Amino acid sequence: MNDDFKVTPWEVTGEIDYDQLITRFGTKKIDREMLDRLSGYGELHPMLRRSVVYSQRDLGWLLDLYDKGQKFFLYTGRGPSGGTHLGHLMPWIFTKYLQDLFHVNLYFQMTDDEKYLFNENLSLDDTRRAAYDNALDFIALGFDPEKTKIVIDTEQIKLLYPLALKVAKRVTFSTAKAVFGFDNSNNIGSIFYTSMQAAPCFIEDALYGKNTPCLIPCGIDQDAHFRVARDVAPLLGYHKPALIHNKMFPGLTGNDKMSSSQPLTTIFTTDKPREVKKKIGNAFTGGQASVDEQRKLGGRPEVCSVFKYQYFLFEKDDRALDDLSERCRKGEILCGECKQLLTQRINEFLEEHQRKREEAKERLHEFMLPPTC
Amino acid sequence: MNDDFKVTPWEVTGEIDYDQLITRFGTKKIDREMLDRLSGYGELHPMLRRSVVYSQRDLGWLLDLYDKGQKFFLYTGRGPSGGTHLGHLMPWIFTKYLQDLFHVNLYFQMTDDEKYLFNENLSLDDTRRAAYDNALDFIALGFDPEKTKIVIDTEQIKLLYPLALKVAKRVTFSTAKAVFGFDNSNNIGSIFYTSMQAAPCFIEDALYGKNTPCLIPCGIDQDAHFRVARDVAPLLGYHKPALIHNKMFPGLTGNDKMSSSQPLTTIFTTDKPREVKKKIGNAFTGGQASVDEQRKLGGRPEVCSVFKYQYFLFEKDDRALDDLSERCRKGEILCGECKQLLTQRINEFLEEHQRKREEAKERLHEFMLPPTC
Repeated sequence: MNDDFKVTPWEVTGEIDYDQLITRFGTKKIDREMLDRLSGYGELHPMLRRSVVYSQRDLGWLLDLYDKGQKFFLYTGRGPSGGTHLGHLMPWIFTKYLQDLFHVNLYFQMTDDEKYLFNENLSLDDTRRAAYDNALDFIALGFDPEKTKIVIDTEQIKLLYPLALKVAKRVTFSTAKAVFGFDNSNNIGSIFYTSMQAAPCFIEDALYGKNTPCLIPCGIDQDAHFRVARDVAPLLGYHKPALIHNKMFPGLTGNDKMSSSQPLTTIFTTDKPREVKKKIGNAFTGGQASVDEQRKLGGRPEVCSVFKYQYFLFEKDDRALDDLSERCRKGEILCGECKQLLTQRINEFLEEHQRKREEAKERLHEFMLPPTC
Repeated sequence: MNDDFKVTPWEVTGEIDYDQLITRFGTKKIDREMLDRLSGYGELHPMLRRSVVYSQRDLGWLLDLYDKGQKFFLYTGRGPSGGTHLGHLMPWIFTKYLQDLFHVNLYFQMTDDEKYLFNENLSLDDTRRAAYDNALDFIALGFDPEKTKIVIDTEQIKLLYPLALKVAKRVTFSTAKAVFGFDNSNNIGSIFYTSMQAAPCFIEDALYGKNTPCLIPCGIDQDAHFRVARDVAPLLGYHKPALIHNKMFPGLTGNDKMSSSQPLTTIFTTDKPREVKKKIGNAFTGGQASVDEQRKLGGRPEVCSVFKYQYFLFEKDDRALDDLSERCRKGEILCGECKQLLTQRINEFLEEHQRKREEAKERLHEFMLPPTC
């Protein structure tokens, strides 16, 4: 068993054993039974069929309530430290699927305070600017502004702070140490911060005086925050937030997580076609050292970042994906072709995304809460 | 030397040796030279003449700047946990003296978040309600709304939070432990809180983009917060706040600090004349066991809470105060008479105060920052 990996809200390193994370964190695998149940609400998203979204907490309980007519709301977010990349879009795309499936409200938190507190080199102006920039990518995905609001921590702090205080009062430094691995050298803002990430779980109380159940689609790396939020919720008379976790979007180097800190191997939403071409061209694959060997021995899609991109995000047709995998293993397709195919897909996607992203600049206000909040 | 006392922002116990606090905290005594300098701006307040206001940090530096034409602003505040008592009024009265002397802006912080975080039994509604209630007592003292703004933490959080984050990023848990005596059992909100108390030191940057020097009149028990703020200020490019400290207003039991948690021996600003009479009637004095002994041996004003009230707040005439002390020592005046005199003084003061307090209900908005803040 591989124990040599780390998954926290601020650090993902090593080769992640996702099944082991379920045991470590105490979540539940999304099993056949749950997939069957979910398919009752509409077609299963490829991320569900492929176990990209693979773990949950209290999802069954939430669906029971939903079936009885109790609406929930969705809550997800982004730590705005720089440009948006494909890895950020993935859970947002899945969140849109959930919103379309269940017709529920969605709150999207921009944690500009977090990114400021946890990054020595970022100013609060940097992270606030990033929040407004990243919001364009979020809006570009086509959310309905009637049901969707963006909450920027330093902007909507008047709404969030009382909720954060209620959480903070119930969390000791011992707990924060145990959950996040903090020590005496952490700054006191970073220690407080988890309360801010918990706050939107209860946002409909602050907005409408309603104890609405909440479902959080997020990367499994964010689970720690919501373990804290779930422990505190009943003490405040709130429902525990339910969760649905996705795996980390892979990097182009074969790493387990795409990271903005490696811009040359990260595809940003504002990249131009030739940049994408170059980055995909340099990507780590599962191919052999030479064309001859590849023809003879075949490639290994399971380690190939180019294949993973199709698997996680771009090839929605399961048969086409299996076919691609098959042809790779048999040496029928070379890495160059595969890269070309993916580059084309990404560039088609980005062309459309960048157009919508420009339009979003005029629509930001539609996604903001009223200034009184 | 008496070491057996404790003075922190949340706990004052034992018999306080105020000179020793100066050494412990590293502040400066307000000496003859400083009093002479201050008297150049106007008549010295009795609290200065009597060393009720007795310690400072960087006051000389601040006056140097002022003399060169650089205005500072005043910042003081209140932790709103219940009704206002005379002990709370004392530093506010001194603050008004300073504002009248120097014609400067004043920001008054209501730390409803602090009181919520540090008191298990108080809800955030309780402390917010107390903030609005206590504000009436502040306004009743006659501040000029053109120069004076009340800042309620949860209301003006959008203004304060970015400043608090900047402070919080520069303060480690080690520091908070060392300064405040925190341990692992403290809640993460209380650990963060000092950043909120530091924030108004830099409020004119947030309001006007100005790095205005700041003078904080406060109880010496609050010094710990501002040691932190002073350490951080230069890292953020701000002036260190200057301080001017008062001693704790005595309790009626002979304790060193009046406390709301002992309502029967605490005089609230809303007390009725007969309540005041009863409380003063039961007060601890320096008198002898019998009238005969008192006539023969005299009393001890230095331990008498009734005398201390005259000393700290009600008898502004130094000669009249000396005369009272003299007559007590000689047994010429009995405790009953002294209590009657003080009761009358307090009731006269409270009658006027309560009238102005009623008027303040219509004037709250004049003291609030615009809603955009």
